[in-house]
Amino acid sequence: MTLSMRYPAIDETHDPALSSWVEGADDHPDFPVQNLPLGIVSTGGGDPRVGVAIGEHVLDLAAIAGLLPDDGRAALSQPSLNAYMALRPEQRLALRRRLSSLLTREDERRAIEPHLHRASACMLHMPARIGDYTDFYTGIHHAVNLGSVFRPDHPLLPNYKHVPIGYHGRASSVRISGVPVRRPSGQVRTAEGTAPELAPTRRLDFELELGFWVGAANRPGEALPIERAPDSLVGICLLNDWSARDVQAWEYQPLGPFLAKNFHTTISPWVVTAEALAPFRIAQPARPEGDPAPLPYLFDAADQAHGALSLDLHVALLPRGGTEAVPIARSHASHMYWTPAQLVAHHSVGGCNLEPGDLLGSGTISAPVPSGLGSLMEMTRGWKDPITLPDGQSRLALEDGDEIRLSAVASAPGFRSIGLGRCDGRVVA
Amino acid sequence: MTLSMRYPAIDETHDPALSSWVEGADDHPDFPVQNLPLGIVSTGGGDPRVGVAIGEHVLDLAAIAGLLPDDGRAALSQPSLNAYMALRPEQRLALRRRLSSLLTREDERRAIEPHLHRASACMLHMPARIGDYTDFYTGIHHAVNLGSVFRPDHPLLPNYKHVPIGYHGRASSVRISGVPVRRPSGQVRTAEGTAPELAPTRRLDFELELGFWVGAANRPGEALPIERAPDSLVGICLLNDWSARDVQAWEYQPLGPFLAKNFHTTISPWVVTAEALAPFRIAQPARPEGDPAPLPYLFDAADQAHGALSLDLHVALLPRGGTEAVPIARSHASHMYWTPAQLVAHHSVGGCNLEPGDLLGSGTISAPVPSGLGSLMEMTRGWKDPITLPDGQSRLALEDGDEIRLSAVASAPGFRSIGLGRCDGRVVA
Repeated sequence: MTLSMRYPAIDETHDPALSSWVEGADDHPDFPVQNLPLGIVSTGGGDPRVGVAIGEHVLDLAAIAGLLPDDGRAALSQPSLNAYMALRPEQRLALRRRLSSLLTREDERRAIEPHLHRASACMLHMPARIGDYTDFYTGIHHAVNLGSVFRPDHPLLPNYKHVPIGYHGRASSVRISGVPVRRPSGQVRTAEGTAPELAPTRRLDFELELGFWVGAANRPGEALPIERAPDSLVGICLLNDWSARDVQAWEYQPLGPFLAKNFHTTISPWVVTAEALAPFRIAQPARPEGDPAPLPYLFDAADQAHGALSLDLHVALLPRGGTEAVPIARSHASHMYWTPAQLVAHHSVGGCNLEPGDLLGSGTISAPVPSGLGSLMEMTRGWKDPITLPDGQSRLALEDGDEIRLSAVASAPGFRSIGLGRCDGRVVA
Repeated sequence: MTLSMRYPAIDETHDPALSSWVEGADDHPDFPVQNLPLGIVSTGGGDPRVGVAIGEHVLDLAAIAGLLPDDGRAALSQPSLNAYMALRPEQRLALRRRLSSLLTREDERRAIEPHLHRASACMLHMPARIGDYTDFYTGIHHAVNLGSVFRPDHPLLPNYKHVPIGYHGRASSVRISGVPVRRPSGQVRTAEGTAPELAPTRRLDFELELGFWVGAANRPGEALPIERAPDSLVGICLLNDWSARDVQAWEYQPLGPFLAKNFHTTISPWVVTAEALAPFRIAQPARPEGDPAPLPYLFDAADQAHGALSLDLHVALLPRGGTEAVPIARSHASHMYWTPAQLVAHHSVGGCNLEPGDLLGSGTISAPVPSGLGSLMEMTRGWKDPITLPDGQSRLALEDGDEIRLSAVASAPGFRSIGLGRCDGRVVA
């Protein structure tokens, strides 16, 4: 296997000159024909089915199943993408190539156009039934920043640079962009040594993360070698790991976060596929001098050369009562200390079976600069310095009515940029 | 609502004089007709379906669907118990009463007997598709014992008596009794300060737990009040939370156990229903003098009066190459510091939605005596004092070929005891 074969190759579907006959698609910031993300949609009260986003439209794949490759077609007539995620890489690639052809060739237009729906007329659903959701902690700058607040004496624990730290999250409360985020109650203490009380969180925060969708992976009791991990990474999304920091501080010892996180997690509804991401693979940044080398089960030269992603990440806050979202942070996926393939190799090394439809979170991806912090806890330096908004309001934590919008753009010289779509959530009382 | 109405009442199905026409059932230690646990079985390569255990037999409920109550019958023609778990309490009760009648009345025998299968000819399957698996930490003596090893200076953390500590576990690797347990590899350090290596765990341990099956519960964003929690607790099982302690010690800070636990969890395959447990409800033991009272959302007088279970818990070890299982621990469910209803109320208080088929683990239930410890880490006082077996072998941790068998018996004066069935797992390399 050559290095370049680990991940889908760049092919004619990534040609920046490729143009779709779908009106407006070529100019769409997120979903030009070079992207072709998959999701689950319904229209007019119908059943949820697989669709592909193209500009401001959605193509109903169940309706055009007869025009899609035979092999794997059945996976597209489901109300979730779990079966798609279980396909082999060559089946997923064949689907992409066919979709690209159908949406760019004028001679296909007449057959396809009747099955396009305006995105604004579609209802989006969870893209997959998530079997297990695991959240990692790969954002090393976030780990240092957060650790400084919870454990000033040793912010980065001795295991951090050896173990891709992660924990199991709650699958049932992962929801798509746009679902309101109810402010949770939980046990909090107003001061050290006082008795706890049940109260709505006063320290509601967001976390800027990426999500990685898992496909066919390993059987129980068998590890998935890092060389094969890319085959199991079928797509990505944005992920907001809403956090109640006061609840977290009181509950998290010794078994980790629980109610502080499990009330709601927001993801973007479109699965931007591994195939679409081919032009945007970059080398994992070299580890700083003095950092330990990854253990052999976490090291693959091809992964180091191609396993990271060139993705700009953005956070904007639309404050309560406001009309304009204010950019509050900008980061980049290369601030992940571990690659997605390393996460898969680690997760499975003890024999834990990963399944199609599992979701892995990156952990908060902060940049090592004040403008690149992926949570309010970091921006306010542990609730000490409020951030000030252009309209004069200030924030330590999120207030009812505030909306957080995450976005991401993949870009590379000579290629058409693609986006991940919306990942918005508004806080309600 | 009177206190006694929180949980299913004792009725004629619990009559100790009740006798089944099924041969041997009256003498069966676990599954007399007073029990009637539900599971998923298949015979002769057929499809998995719902069955009820009666003595050494299993009754195929899909085959006798026409004789079961109309209301809720559809839930029994599924390959999992998720739909059963979603039924209303009165539907579940009606099913139990009907099954009791069918298996005790001689005049029903002719219609029913053809659909009985010898248990030894049945293959058992996972009783439910587990949406989310949460493991709690309610065994206070275990928490003290384990904390003494990991954190000698403060074994029981300040939050323990206020917060029902729990964390999210791995749903995909929960398996039924009898599935071999592959010894996991993971990152371990041979000594403090040395570099970690990837190696098979040298500290494989078991944990004696109960599992609580969740039924219809709360909607996203809404808490389930403790008064309504009993309706959502549809049944119980045994649970062995296999643990790789050397992996756990190195990985667990700051987000809790991950690979140390997610390689395998064994449960007993039969769901012993809330209705069957009616005679075995007891008062939650009074908290020791000086312990804080539970916060109001965790307190319900009826739960304190009836919410605990009279269940003797047993651990036996069949050592590698041995022929006889050796009892190594005996504990009791009343050593849970929190009741199952308190776990449900806490889990949902921030709005996390619980779903039919979710599984809650109790955490290791150790008794406060040397003969009642629910893990080897406790029995060996942190790997210092090996346990000695009758044949002269000794153990610090589990060896390949060792088998751990958990069992449990519910008993109450004047009632027929019932058991939870087998929860066995043998370690393989």
